[in-house]
Amino acid sequence: MKTLIIDMDNVMADISRHFIEAYNRETGENIDRQALLGKPEVGAFPQPDVIHRLLHTPGFFLTAPLMKDSQEVVAELNKKYKVFIVSSAMEFPQSLPEKFEWLAKHFPFIGWQQIIFCGSKSVITGDYMIDDYPKNLDYFGGGRLLFTAPHNYALTGYDRVDSWQDVADRLLRSETPHV
Amino acid sequence: MKTLIIDMDNVMADISRHFIEAYNRETGENIDRQALLGKPEVGAFPQPDVIHRLLHTPGFFLTAPLMKDSQEVVAELNKKYKVFIVSSAMEFPQSLPEKFEWLAKHFPFIGWQQIIFCGSKSVITGDYMIDDYPKNLDYFGGGRLLFTAPHNYALTGYDRVDSWQDVADRLLRSETPHV
Repeated sequence: MKTLIIDMDNVMADISRHFIEAYNRETGENIDRQALLGKPEVGAFPQPDVIHRLLHTPGFFLTAPLMKDSQEVVAELNKKYKVFIVSSAMEFPQSLPEKFEWLAKHFPFIGWQQIIFCGSKSVITGDYMIDDYPKNLDYFGGGRLLFTAPHNYALTGYDRVDSWQDVADRLLRSETPHV
Repeated sequence: MKTLIIDMDNVMADISRHFIEAYNRETGENIDRQALLGKPEVGAFPQPDVIHRLLHTPGFFLTAPLMKDSQEVVAELNKKYKVFIVSSAMEFPQSLPEKFEWLAKHFPFIGWQQIIFCGSKSVITGDYMIDDYPKNLDYFGGGRLLFTAPHNYALTGYDRVDSWQDVADRLLRSETPHV
């Protein structure tokens, strides 16, 4: 069974939408996804300190919305691959138990043995990795899929998936994984 | 610079001593290290449920004592190697922020980028690993050092270190690492 490494933020959890909704609620501004395209994740917002504060706010990660179709597709992937959920959570230690609880709530079929919280992903190995950050994919020795997020929108040179249906096409619906 | 993976419990933190002291305090028994030699870590205690309870008690991991010489030797290793602290913490989610805080307190020179909390270590790669559990070393592709702990006392077939001075001899004091 091949090993598949799956990122959380902007892949399983729709953190961009969560940022936008919380930011607009806090500031009264009206930022939309279009305004973030091709810009750094935090710096894209006119008041980046609001985003920094959100990242340290208890409950922020616990209440993140799901990325569309992530539950159904990850459940199927979990039958065909050795799935590991690997999240760069260590910069925000208060997020650690929240991310654990979020996974238990939305992905109850993922066991604690399959969860990894790290700072850097440079020592993670496997056959395939799905991530929205090029820096994580660049380290990785296996097949790489860049999950489209506002901040990586303009990047070229990566094998890209735009949705969990795209992931299913690549890793579930073809005879051999298409990565 | 070579990558060195270091375990926490029974390697950086003297969890065996912590178990013994807390267990004796809770039960009024008088278990010593000798009584645990060669036995499974939890099952070695006459009342394993007391150990299970300790593992889920808030504050237990935060108050773990240091393994002798661990601070000094890890500080030196951190200059010569790309050090990653990799701990199987996910079975006890309440331990996640405690382990992070424990590291920040006792090993302030270790950055959050160097910390990984996982369930299984099977997708961790690197050049060298120091761990007290054979199951973690068995997965690992690089050089392996088994750190002596009561539960692994009788095991043969592993390259063993008994102390942080032994680790220093192997990884610091010789021209090339002796692993």
